[in-house]
Amino acid sequence: MKALRVSHGNTSLEDIGLPQTTDESLVRVVCSGICNTDLEIIKGYAAFEGTIGHEFVGIVEHSPKDPSLIGKRVVGEINAGCGTCPLCLAGDPRHCPGRTVLGIKGRDGSHAEYLSLPAANLLPVPDTVSNEQAVFAEPLAAAIGITEQVEIRPETRVAVIGDGKLGQLCVRAISSLTAKASLIGKHTSKLKMAESQGIETIPLEKAGSMAASFDVVVEASGAESGFASALDLVRPRGKIVLKSTFHGKPVWEAWRVVVDEITVVGSRCGRLGSALEYLAAGRVRVDDLIDSRFGLTKALDAIDRASSSGTMKVLLDIEN
Amino acid sequence: MKALRVSHGNTSLEDIGLPQTTDESLVRVVCSGICNTDLEIIKGYAAFEGTIGHEFVGIVEHSPKDPSLIGKRVVGEINAGCGTCPLCLAGDPRHCPGRTVLGIKGRDGSHAEYLSLPAANLLPVPDTVSNEQAVFAEPLAAAIGITEQVEIRPETRVAVIGDGKLGQLCVRAISSLTAKASLIGKHTSKLKMAESQGIETIPLEKAGSMAASFDVVVEASGAESGFASALDLVRPRGKIVLKSTFHGKPVWEAWRVVVDEITVVGSRCGRLGSALEYLAAGRVRVDDLIDSRFGLTKALDAIDRASSSGTMKVLLDIEN
Repeated sequence: MKALRVSHGNTSLEDIGLPQTTDESLVRVVCSGICNTDLEIIKGYAAFEGTIGHEFVGIVEHSPKDPSLIGKRVVGEINAGCGTCPLCLAGDPRHCPGRTVLGIKGRDGSHAEYLSLPAANLLPVPDTVSNEQAVFAEPLAAAIGITEQVEIRPETRVAVIGDGKLGQLCVRAISSLTAKASLIGKHTSKLKMAESQGIETIPLEKAGSMAASFDVVVEASGAESGFASALDLVRPRGKIVLKSTFHGKPVWEAWRVVVDEITVVGSRCGRLGSALEYLAAGRVRVDDLIDSRFGLTKALDAIDRASSSGTMKVLLDIEN
Repeated sequence: MKALRVSHGNTSLEDIGLPQTTDESLVRVVCSGICNTDLEIIKGYAAFEGTIGHEFVGIVEHSPKDPSLIGKRVVGEINAGCGTCPLCLAGDPRHCPGRTVLGIKGRDGSHAEYLSLPAANLLPVPDTVSNEQAVFAEPLAAAIGITEQVEIRPETRVAVIGDGKLGQLCVRAISSLTAKASLIGKHTSKLKMAESQGIETIPLEKAGSMAASFDVVVEASGAESGFASALDLVRPRGKIVLKSTFHGKPVWEAWRVVVDEITVVGSRCGRLGSALEYLAAGRVRVDDLIDSRFGLTKALDAIDRASSSGTMKVLLDIEN
């Protein structure tokens, strides 16, 4: 099968064998989304070698542990725990120290014709959710995860910094809980995308006048300046949610966190079940976030497109 | 009256008039404690000019707004709010943007024969609490404040980094809620002080082997390396409490906060009522934390003593 792989610092489309597994489920990938984390891995993040990609929708072809899944259209939880540590036994493998992560850590990913995951990781997609929507389940779950870590009430004032893919999903998920969510960014066209969803936007250059105005500030820009901006915008005793896995080492003014008693919450992943519910109920729209679609044979072109500044979601249609 | 004042970068004992106030309460100071924040202010922090000191016990001599306080032995909440902003109206002036802070911001402090504070800031001290204990009410309240911001249960594993005054108070307050609290430090004699209170201690050089072992890590060392140590020690989805108002700009690995979904909680002040209850009930012992006592006329010697590395609490006995 064809697979987009990173090896020794090179990224290429290779012909490899099907995933070899005796007990996991085999999924034929239908559509796979390119995430910024893929681009970071291509640049060397996490020292991952293998097939990249972790946002997908596919059809289960083989599933020894749960035959009822065969033929189902599914999305997948990307963390696969060891199954025996206290975290896994408590039902949440997302922080298992021995976990593998689809296309990120110790496990081949979804930019390929087939992938394998434990049956327990797979969730059937409701019929009313299209493939193009379902492929957003993983990043949308991560956005919804914010609302599971930080209480968002109808009166909570939230600012999301960053008008890219991640910021758009975050502000849309949060807007389903409060009308007082704003998106802060520097790209007029992207701010307009949020406005078309009824979300208030604030151009970055005007955010300076809104110091200490928000109960919760979500940093989703990935810029090193994002944390400093968040400190400016959050009220005393407010919360800053760090969503971007940026890899610089920002200098931060720790005394401000202490004096203003700010809480900083690191937020990575969420639950795919919630994301499917949001999509099925139409609580969050994602269709307008698709920039372009490429066949798997054009995967390197797709990566080029996704890498150019300001591109929204690029999808790979896997033609098996 | 005599007062220890900072002015234009100089610190000196001066003769000044009594506090001038028409509606606040006048307190004759009996004992005043030297805090590291005093030493920071002497070095220029917060650009404060005036009488320093904010840990005190004293006797109310004049109190137009609440005459029932006259003659009472009191401690005082150091933040005085504007009284009209939303935070003040909600009953918590500690983050009022227009607040003054005793001996720290816009208000003369307690290293003097007299001070003034609003009557609402003053709390009578139970008879069973000595002056030497009561003067710890403010820093102890700050330590107890951690337990009001972060849930500590009997099974919660807590590490406090820093064996100085602040770390000692923090680990003692937390130990009243969990038997699984440990103090991490590099001074054998100070670790022994905590051990004498039945608290487990870990020499700093042995902490490296305890990565991801704690649910909550309190950074109370004030060292720039403290945050990195806390990141090593806390488990995924655990909490780091920043207690020290250190004034460097530490570089921090934001990606670790995100990937491990750590929550970082800035913690500054607590409620003095809780501290007085702890002291009256003997839940936290403080007597052994006193290093030395000086008369107010020897205040500069006391500052010298407090400034020397490793000194625990230095008290000023105010002989009116």
